Amino acid sequence: MTLADDVLAGSRRALARLLTRIENEEAPSELAALYPHTGRAWIIGVTGAPGTGKSSLVNALATAYRAQGKTVGIIAVDPTSPFTGGAILGDRIRMSAHSGDPGVFIRSMATRGSLGGLSRTARDAARALDAAGFDIVLIETVGAGQSEVDIVRTAHTTLVVEAPGLGDDVQAIKAGILEIADVLVVNKADRPGAVNTVRVLRAMLELGHPAARTSVQHHGQTLTVDAPAGSDTDAATWIPPIVQTVATLAIDDDASGLPALIDAISAHRRHLETGGQRARIERLHLEQELHERLRAELMARLLRDLPRDTFDALIDDVQSRHIDPHTAVQTILSRTTGGAPR
Amino acid sequence: MTLADDVLAGSRRALARLLTRIENEEAPSELAALYPHTGRAWIIGVTGAPGTGKSSLVNALATAYRAQGKTVGIIAVDPTSPFTGGAILGDRIRMSAHSGDPGVFIRSMATRGSLGGLSRTARDAARALDAAGFDIVLIETVGAGQSEVDIVRTAHTTLVVEAPGLGDDVQAIKAGILEIADVLVVNKADRPGAVNTVRVLRAMLELGHPAARTSVQHHGQTLTVDAPAGSDTDAATWIPPIVQTVATLAIDDDASGLPALIDAISAHRRHLETGGQRARIERLHLEQELHERLRAELMARLLRDLPRDTFDALIDDVQSRHIDPHTAVQTILSRTTGGAPR
Repeated sequence: MTLADDVLAGSRRALARLLTRIENEEAPSELAALYPHTGRAWIIGVTGAPGTGKSSLVNALATAYRAQGKTVGIIAVDPTSPFTGGAILGDRIRMSAHSGDPGVFIRSMATRGSLGGLSRTARDAARALDAAGFDIVLIETVGAGQSEVDIVRTAHTTLVVEAPGLGDDVQAIKAGILEIADVLVVNKADRPGAVNTVRVLRAMLELGHPAARTSVQHHGQTLTVDAPAGSDTDAATWIPPIVQTVATLAIDDDASGLPALIDAISAHRRHLETGGQRARIERLHLEQELHERLRAELMARLLRDLPRDTFDALIDDVQSRHIDPHTAVQTILSRTTGGAPR
Repeated sequence: MTLADDVLAGSRRALARLLTRIENEEAPSELAALYPHTGRAWIIGVTGAPGTGKSSLVNALATAYRAQGKTVGIIAVDPTSPFTGGAILGDRIRMSAHSGDPGVFIRSMATRGSLGGLSRTARDAARALDAAGFDIVLIETVGAGQSEVDIVRTAHTTLVVEAPGLGDDVQAIKAGILEIADVLVVNKADRPGAVNTVRVLRAMLELGHPAARTSVQHHGQTLTVDAPAGSDTDAATWIPPIVQTVATLAIDDDASGLPALIDAISAHRRHLETGGQRARIERLHLEQELHERLRAELMARLLRDLPRDTFDALIDDVQSRHIDPHTAVQTILSRTTGGAPR
């Protein structure tokens, strides 16, 4: 039995070992063997600024999906430096909540180099959990620009988590984050200012999605759960619903908002699965992945070909301003296979 | 006279035209011609979350440097989507403050595609301003993960701007941001909570830089300007000082904190210029730049070689799970020059 076979057979120990190999980027053959078994899990990305309660929300989602009898794999990606220690602490809290439940598998991954490397690793880890048979795969990442964009390239449904207390300034909601959200979650909704946070998000959505304005008229001034927004309008347009949650409450407490969040995720899934949207999105993600892998592989080959002292001498010339960076690149490519005649 | 000659001769109109060409990535020959004239400006990166008052601070810094008789070029990079409109509004406010002063040149740049493209453009724009003779070049960017990392690769001194009201939670200070800061600025320091923001930053610095603890003991509980921190300790270690500012006050008002901020930037410059640190850092930045340019150029050449329908057919095979992504990449490389025998 290979490691991949053991993972397919359901061994959690094998899965843990495989994830370590994936983290070290040593698992191309295992990933190739598992790849035909992927495509069944629903992959949910969860991102948001530190302090929004993402980890608690992921925890509550896992509990809610377990209550439906679904198995859940969690990948917590921490692109921050080791000294904050957030990943490890959060992991322990999560672990204890689901300890002894074989239907939940949790793995946190910290930066081992570039952000790019981490997002590749997270995608491969999600595939491993998918192949291992988990129904739901949750990828949690700190809202930090590039890692948010990367999570979108892996997930089917992306949740962007906000919390009250970020100020009433429209600018305080992180710019650019709305575009990646399939569902907006205002967590810690029992705190003062939650209504205002919802209002600000709604206003920003209206700016970004003209159709959202119609939806607001349909719902009057309702600022609470707005899950049906996506299904309200043209089938081709998905308007991110805004769901208020208190992730620290029990999931069967109405005030937790968890059932509404699960419904919103299901609505998004139905939206993608009707009209072939899911296949189109998965294809786009694969295309982006191949581009990214090609770029990395081309560079690795070039650096193997290029003697270090040749590169160093060229950097000297650029630093002393004898040649400019553009010319230096052309010089390197003309000396290596990258510039081979075609 | 070429466009580059006109820029070197001091024409602001030519500079504006060149920056447009740079934005469109159409200026390799001009940049090559200007490159030997670069290396004189001090490049200062300014980053931080929306709402921290970065634009006002950049404005105040420009005023302060002008008062010293230095010329100032400003590049405002907005990696956010067009619909927020922040860049254009901020630009107008800045413009009016310095209108009629030929010693200040302001240009804002919005996303025209990838974040990577924008950071290349910002670096090239900084070089153009450097060659055009500006003493100080300020690059302002919204704190959004990757763009912060990129700004560090261009700037000599990076300011990270915080503001009170982000909550007293340590996690509320954006994770990972401390590592890129050469100077930490708590702007809006007249607002409630400024002392607490400084305390949280200080605590995080102590975690990241053990030497910072010594510095705190030297200064007792002083939570105000701490500019000498860098010079206090081992010459090889720079501990980011924390400077409190109120950028909306007149720069000669003691409470503005601007003189202290200018001093902190000067101290960092002296730190880099003693012991050859500046040359080492510039070399590292050039090395990163060449890598980045090589990656982009290799990919462009590969995509020129690879017929679109070949690529599409391969994506089909990956999507239907007949082959895995890793194998697909190897297949592509064996068919194109990227896989030419070496």
